[in-house]
Amino acid sequence: MCSLVSINDISRAEILSIINDALERKKGKKTEQFPGVLASLFYESSTRTRESTECAAHRLGMHVIGFSGIEGTSVQKGEPLADTLRMYRGFGANIIALRHPLEGAARYAADILNIPVINCGDGSNLHPTQTLLDLMTITEKRGSVDGLRIALVGDLKYGRTVHSLVAGLKMFSNITLWLVAPDSLKMPAHFIEHFPGTIYHAHDIAEVDVDILYMTRIQRERFPQGPDGELEFDKVSRIYQLTPSVLEGKNVGVMHPLPRYKHRIEISLAVDSLHNAWYIDQAENGVFLREALLSSMMLNKISRRKKEFIPGAWKELSVKNYPKEAQETIYRIDNGTLIDHIHAGKGKEVLSVLQIDAAAKFVYASNISSKVYERKDVVGFPDRELTEMELSKVALVEPDATINIIRDKQVYKKGKVVLPSIIDGLVICQNPRCITYKTHNEFAPQKFHVVSHDPLLLACYYCEVPVEREKIKLE
Amino acid sequence: MCSLVSINDISRAEILSIINDALERKKGKKTEQFPGVLASLFYESSTRTRESTECAAHRLGMHVIGFSGIEGTSVQKGEPLADTLRMYRGFGANIIALRHPLEGAARYAADILNIPVINCGDGSNLHPTQTLLDLMTITEKRGSVDGLRIALVGDLKYGRTVHSLVAGLKMFSNITLWLVAPDSLKMPAHFIEHFPGTIYHAHDIAEVDVDILYMTRIQRERFPQGPDGELEFDKVSRIYQLTPSVLEGKNVGVMHPLPRYKHRIEISLAVDSLHNAWYIDQAENGVFLREALLSSMMLNKISRRKKEFIPGAWKELSVKNYPKEAQETIYRIDNGTLIDHIHAGKGKEVLSVLQIDAAAKFVYASNISSKVYERKDVVGFPDRELTEMELSKVALVEPDATINIIRDKQVYKKGKVVLPSIIDGLVICQNPRCITYKTHNEFAPQKFHVVSHDPLLLACYYCEVPVEREKIKLE
Amino acid sequence: MCSLVSINDISRAEILSIINDALERKKGKKTEQFPGVLASLFYESSTRTRESTECAAHRLGMHVIGFSGIEGTSVQKGEPLADTLRMYRGFGANIIALRHPLEGAARYAADILNIPVINCGDGSNLHPTQTLLDLMTITEKRGSVDGLRIALVGDLKYGRTVHSLVAGLKMFSNITLWLVAPDSLKMPAHFIEHFPGTIYHAHDIAEVDVDILYMTRIQRERFPQGPDGELEFDKVSRIYQLTPSVLEGKNVGVMHPLPRYKHRIEISLAVDSLHNAWYIDQAENGVFLREALLSSMMLNKISRRKKEFIPGAWKELSVKNYPKEAQETIYRIDNGTLIDHIHAGKGKEVLSVLQIDAAAKFVYASNISSKVYERKDVVGFPDRELTEMELSKVALVEPDATINIIRDKQVYKKGKVVLPSIIDGLVICQNPRCITYKTHNEFAPQKFHVVSHDPLLLACYYCEVPVEREKIKLE
Repeated sequence: MCSLVSINDISRAEILSIINDALERKKGKKTEQFPGVLASLFYESSTRTRESTECAAHRLGMHVIGFSGIEGTSVQKGEPLADTLRMYRGFGANIIALRHPLEGAARYAADILNIPVINCGDGSNLHPTQTLLDLMTITEKRGSVDGLRIALVGDLKYGRTVHSLVAGLKMFSNITLWLVAPDSLKMPAHFIEHFPGTIYHAHDIAEVDVDILYMTRIQRERFPQGPDGELEFDKVSRIYQLTPSVLEGKNVGVMHPLPRYKHRIEISLAVDSLHNAWYIDQAENGVFLREALLSSMMLNKISRRKKEFIPGAWKELSVKNYPKEAQETIYRIDNGTLIDHIHAGKGKEVLSVLQIDAAAKFVYASNISSKVYERKDVVGFPDRELTEMELSKVALVEPDATINIIRDKQVYKKGKVVLPSIIDGLVICQNPRCITYKTHNEFAPQKFHVVSHDPLLLACYYCEVPVEREKIKLE
Repeated sequence: MCSLVSINDISRAEILSIINDALERKKGKKTEQFPGVLASLFYESSTRTRESTECAAHRLGMHVIGFSGIEGTSVQKGEPLADTLRMYRGFGANIIALRHPLEGAARYAADILNIPVINCGDGSNLHPTQTLLDLMTITEKRGSVDGLRIALVGDLKYGRTVHSLVAGLKMFSNITLWLVAPDSLKMPAHFIEHFPGTIYHAHDIAEVDVDILYMTRIQRERFPQGPDGELEFDKVSRIYQLTPSVLEGKNVGVMHPLPRYKHRIEISLAVDSLHNAWYIDQAENGVFLREALLSSMMLNKISRRKKEFIPGAWKELSVKNYPKEAQETIYRIDNGTLIDHIHAGKGKEVLSVLQIDAAAKFVYASNISSKVYERKDVVGFPDRELTEMELSKVALVEPDATINIIRDKQVYKKGKVVLPSIIDGLVICQNPRCITYKTHNEFAPQKFHVVSHDPLLLACYYCEVPVEREKIKLE
Repeated sequence: MCSLVSINDISRAEILSIINDALERKKGKKTEQFPGVLASLFYESSTRTRESTECAAHRLGMHVIGFSGIEGTSVQKGEPLADTLRMYRGFGANIIALRHPLEGAARYAADILNIPVINCGDGSNLHPTQTLLDLMTITEKRGSVDGLRIALVGDLKYGRTVHSLVAGLKMFSNITLWLVAPDSLKMPAHFIEHFPGTIYHAHDIAEVDVDILYMTRIQRERFPQGPDGELEFDKVSRIYQLTPSVLEGKNVGVMHPLPRYKHRIEISLAVDSLHNAWYIDQAENGVFLREALLSSMMLNKISRRKKEFIPGAWKELSVKNYPKEAQETIYRIDNGTLIDHIHAGKGKEVLSVLQIDAAAKFVYASNISSKVYERKDVVGFPDRELTEMELSKVALVEPDATINIIRDKQVYKKGKVVLPSIIDGLVICQNPRCITYKTHNEFAPQKFHVVSHDPLLLACYYCEVPVEREKIKLE
């Protein structure tokens, strides 16, 4: 059984299978019943997502337990998320639908439970079922997602809906993406990295020529307080307001995750009666899509695309230059570890990361001449061979270092340390909204992916916030 | 399929049929099951109405979705009512039960949806299911409603329960109604207009001789703040407090929509054990009544008594006096519209309502002598025949005006404009608690009934607040 | 059909029967369905108790109605508890599960309804289903409760869970109880009175040698505000914190009613994976235990252990010394009541409790010599025989008084008044959190048990708070 935390957890084939199943359900073709229990745990307000998920469960004959908002729950008494989740599993839950204010909460839930978790939104991070129903609506209206021209309009900086949709669209071919946003609300670069289609940027709906306009709500909170912010917000929200005149004669579908904001409506109600108003069907598709998803989970049909774990490696180098003649003797070691080819001045960091105590034996040669760099640092630990964990730490601060394990004055092993694909309990996530952040007291362990080795880029396993080598903070 | 927004929406026969069905259900005779969905949308708090409606749905095998209070719903995010309603219809709702703080909200909901809406209270406006269960309780206890003497006691000014009950009682014959209230909380006159039975007014329960005492709660908020208001409230709430001694030896039934207010109890708990305490049964009848209502709706057995639409008319007058001899030439028109018999001084209003722009051609003769009135105004539009909408506007400000359509110096058509029974998008409702009121941003259109033509009285189609001709405000 | 308000309401045999039934349900052996309705009325927040009770009802095929928190209910409008309860019974409830902030609320509910009430916590008073599931967990893990050594740890002063557990454990034999608490949070003496096993006191977990550690949460609110209270709280909560090291090598089960408090966790999450962590199973047992309880109630299998009512009595004394020779004539009465053997000075209280009005005839002899005491008071009422209620009042203030009923100068009857086992409407409960306390306006009558006659100790029938003779307050 498998969870849906990110749209990246499932394959294109699984997405298409769920969408097709949902479209059949919409036509009234499916009637299977599952006598199971859905725990619907919404730590934050949501009507659309929650009601459609619970409705879908009821249509499948499932019983629904849980809460909507933490008012009057044990959460308010300071119960750890893990305990609340286990309690609901204890109440017989077969599936958990979770919305939580902390980023990575759903991934953490999926990790500690042996039942599937549906991420219904974790902070401003992910919202995969919205993406599935968006893709379902596009498929329903145009037969296929491939090859379409799609404009994402409005708040592309904070909107998890559009971030998740971009991730989903990466699995389809030949997409032309228009990103239409004011400068202050542009989509962060890492969301569109490796996007396989074409990307254009614009400031105004008028500039784009597309098949689909995907509108979002622009929130007042995103702009500075005070009259200047008010003015800016006013200007921006007027630009991204859709009226029938914009659509006249155009065969463009309008989508919106809803709700609209009635006091400054993004899509005028006059659009509702036009054939362009896909958001009406889009909203109704939520129930069918989630019904298909729940059914797949009850039938164990989803298999998570697990990120393959690649253990840390040792890149062997040939031993040829040891013992060197005329080698500066300051770092001569008979037994132990010699870390060579540290960039000049970085030796201190290597020592620091290894938390060498005052009484420990070590040698530290700084700014000595090198064949590889002009000047280098070398650190040695007589009579001590570093552990794998210690070597990982070295690799995090100085990936270019060469490690020599010396036994009886001979280099027994020489090479460079390659980090494993997942780093457990070493690097600290600095995102204050992450489930692992200390002050939340949620007891989720520190865990990172290695996104790329060169240049080194890590991402928190839970909140998925990336961190570059320079900004890594170790425990 | 039809909604129940006001007790006036259904006929006496339908009321009796629902009551009889409900009484049978109370005896345990009915067991049909409807695999439908009730969306129970309570924008305001209510335990009794909401729980009994949902209970009734469950007894019928229906599934219930919705919310109680807007905390944590998309409503709080500023979603328009229309979108929320359509969302729940999208979730498969067969019937919507709606309580909303804005007056006319339920009528608006019934208008935009193609599924039945039950009005469970819209602001201080209507509450028809309470009236049905009140009538059911009376029928249960006395066999029939006709011919009874009923006292309504307490807050008759703001209490929607008693307003709705009076409307219901209008359908029964030979009712004697006692209105027992302090001067500051008397029933507004328009509720008892056209009441077919006898009406008496009183200040004290002791003065009345009735079959039924219908008690209501008097709320502190209805009196001025400060010690004077407190004193007045104290006095009044003591007068309208029922104890066993008042009932001694009397065959009078006591009703109350409940809840009672424990800190200043309207009916002492000692009354509970007396045979007079009908409110115990009354409260229990809520479930059976609403079960009968839901069943009727699921079976399409209710047909709304639609107010017949009478289109605007042209009251033809015979053309005899045109072209007149010795007619003052200032308003001689060869082709176009001549509006005659405007009360002296009202011509300006006619021009204003037609929003004549600066460059438009018109003649305006003021205070000229008239055969009909002493002095009159006449307004003419050379080369322009007014549209039907424009003529309606004229009729709103000057119903006595005579319209002459002139072609080639001949009066082609002459007459008076009669307003249609429903006026769309012309008159603005000035009730700030109406669903159409602009600042609520609910996008409900402006719409009025013509209650009477002479003197002209309109009422908002949604909130039902009446407006006289002098107070009409045009868009 | 019978309620479960206190663990003392059911017998050891019934407890064992429910536990065995619950353990069978956990193994999946039971599948009966009851088409009934549970009204789940939680006036205060609770996730664990409420969800597991509702879950249990659903597993039995019951429909659940009610509320969680009073936000948006008629309770907020000031509805008396009695009305709310009757409303839900009117909605078809077969069983009521009640959590209420006032002590005695569940007992009051059970008294006025003819359907079973489950007390899910009334103020800081009782919580019998938690005790049942605690005993179930112990039985599951150790086969039996008898003979075990159990430490209760933490807040033993305010924690209703541990108070209720102690009452439950009184029904088992050979229990060794360790009470581990800081001085400021020690268990009040009356909870452990008549405990049939052995009791030890300790300040630290390290001191105890037990089979079970029953942990509780220590709340910041229990300590004074300001830095001193903070310091004390800090110290105490550190002492009562459980980590794996404490448990190393010990075959001790750890229990906790949950939730834990994540910001100052009582049991470290590292304990979760140890075999000692019984609280994991304990939490899961809630559903099965409550399922067994609901089933018993639906099947009428629980019969409440009613406190036997012993009516007030007359302890007859032989008449031998009347009329006495040389008796001081001041209190000579020909017909009426003479109250003799009042402790010197207490005569005024006797007169006061009888509320003798100014015009009443009485004699009052104070500080006269006595054979029984050194000096005594005597009070006489010529031509008036006291009623049973009046005699009860006398017995409450002066249980040693001798009553003489005199007719025609002869002692017709002589004796001492023995109070009935239940006193109705005479003594006022002074616990401000009691359901009977006047300012709550809940209309529950005053009612007391006689816990012991000598020395006189009463306890409120509802909140169970004891009151000694000196502190009795009469209506």
